[in-house]
Amino acid sequence: MTSLPKDRKAVVIYSGGMDSFTMLQSVRQIREVYALTFDYGQRHGSKELRCAEQVCQQYNIPHQVIDITSIKQLMQSSSLINSNMDIPDGNYEQGNMKSTVVPNRNMILISMAVSYALSIGAAEVYYGAHSGDHEIYPDCRPVFVEALNKAAALCDWNKVSVVAPYLHRSKAEILQDGLSMQLDYSQTWTCYKGNEKACGKCGACKERLQAFALCGTEDPVKYADQL
Amino acid sequence: MTSLPKDRKAVVIYSGGMDSFTMLQSVRQIREVYALTFDYGQRHGSKELRCAEQVCQQYNIPHQVIDITSIKQLMQSSSLINSNMDIPDGNYEQGNMKSTVVPNRNMILISMAVSYALSIGAAEVYYGAHSGDHEIYPDCRPVFVEALNKAAALCDWNKVSVVAPYLHRSKAEILQDGLSMQLDYSQTWTCYKGNEKACGKCGACKERLQAFALCGTEDPVKYADQL
Repeated sequence: MTSLPKDRKAVVIYSGGMDSFTMLQSVRQIREVYALTFDYGQRHGSKELRCAEQVCQQYNIPHQVIDITSIKQLMQSSSLINSNMDIPDGNYEQGNMKSTVVPNRNMILISMAVSYALSIGAAEVYYGAHSGDHEIYPDCRPVFVEALNKAAALCDWNKVSVVAPYLHRSKAEILQDGLSMQLDYSQTWTCYKGNEKACGKCGACKERLQAFALCGTEDPVKYADQL
Repeated sequence: MTSLPKDRKAVVIYSGGMDSFTMLQSVRQIREVYALTFDYGQRHGSKELRCAEQVCQQYNIPHQVIDITSIKQLMQSSSLINSNMDIPDGNYEQGNMKSTVVPNRNMILISMAVSYALSIGAAEVYYGAHSGDHEIYPDCRPVFVEALNKAAALCDWNKVSVVAPYLHRSKAEILQDGLSMQLDYSQTWTCYKGNEKACGKCGACKERLQAFALCGTEDPVKYADQL
């Protein structure tokens, strides 16, 4: 990350999950961070959101939560936001996780983050897309981020950059970064099902557990099948 | 507008104002249109919205209204959505109307329209930026539309095009089009102030009246200073 002499404010899109938690902790070392969390009516939203709120409070980070539940009306084909559909278990693989893709979600979130950046005088928006997302989520691919970055640079007289520091890194590499910073991942939430303990079976849990396994560390979060 | 053989559905971003009304009426000649209106807490919103609803009902156009009032939290510097500030009178000129610019508004609206297009299987999103907007609104400039169009083409496995048919036309030219289609502009609302009659003094009213004057026709909408 290059230094930004004139204005060191940055907006970090922060879900409360492990990737954006790592990013938030990393960026706040070099910028004055403003965390932005979206409540778009996901079933696991409340738990993830609570994590985000607690972390921001603990580290004294200005935190804005934007209620975008009304965008559900735009998206009738996603199981993430439609409670009549089951969440598919298994890994995030093309095919079985397709139904969790909210179409064009990232453009909506990033465009709002850019607005927020412009209104507070920040020149950067950080978002945590990583290389593991490319196959399933077209709006996490480098070509998309590049195109959106160009649009963000032109949307106002002031330029805002969209920075995706993990675009070419895996979830395990991000976790490794965080572990070396001694971050506490019990402060994060990943499971798609909004129960007391993480289910350990949904795509999000499996991906998380795999990252911890690759780093040779145990996940501090409690899982349903643990005693 | 070129023909689109496979899928003739199109989303039209329709505010209830005269430009998007003309566009809606024009596009519905060649596409199966789905109108999308945003309620983002503008003071003149309710009147414009009512116009949009009535028109869609009359022409049997599916109409989705998305409540995005929560994005006010992102934007603290705009008089359009902050009721503590006065709306500046006068023409839309760079400078005095600057405070009505909601930062990055169009990227937010278009990204949601693209989501909607993807979920209903439409391949196009129409939006009504015109050449008179370029000077004041950076997110109405052709370079921005081009950049956003590239991002929209990459955000999903299915391609969506952002079409701005009036990008190089003036408000008067758009009106001239509509008048030649014998459209009834009493079905539109433009004034920024949400009173019973249009104020005739705000930038939006002045621009509208100027377009009618250039077309040599009287505006059917009632103004506060008329008997």
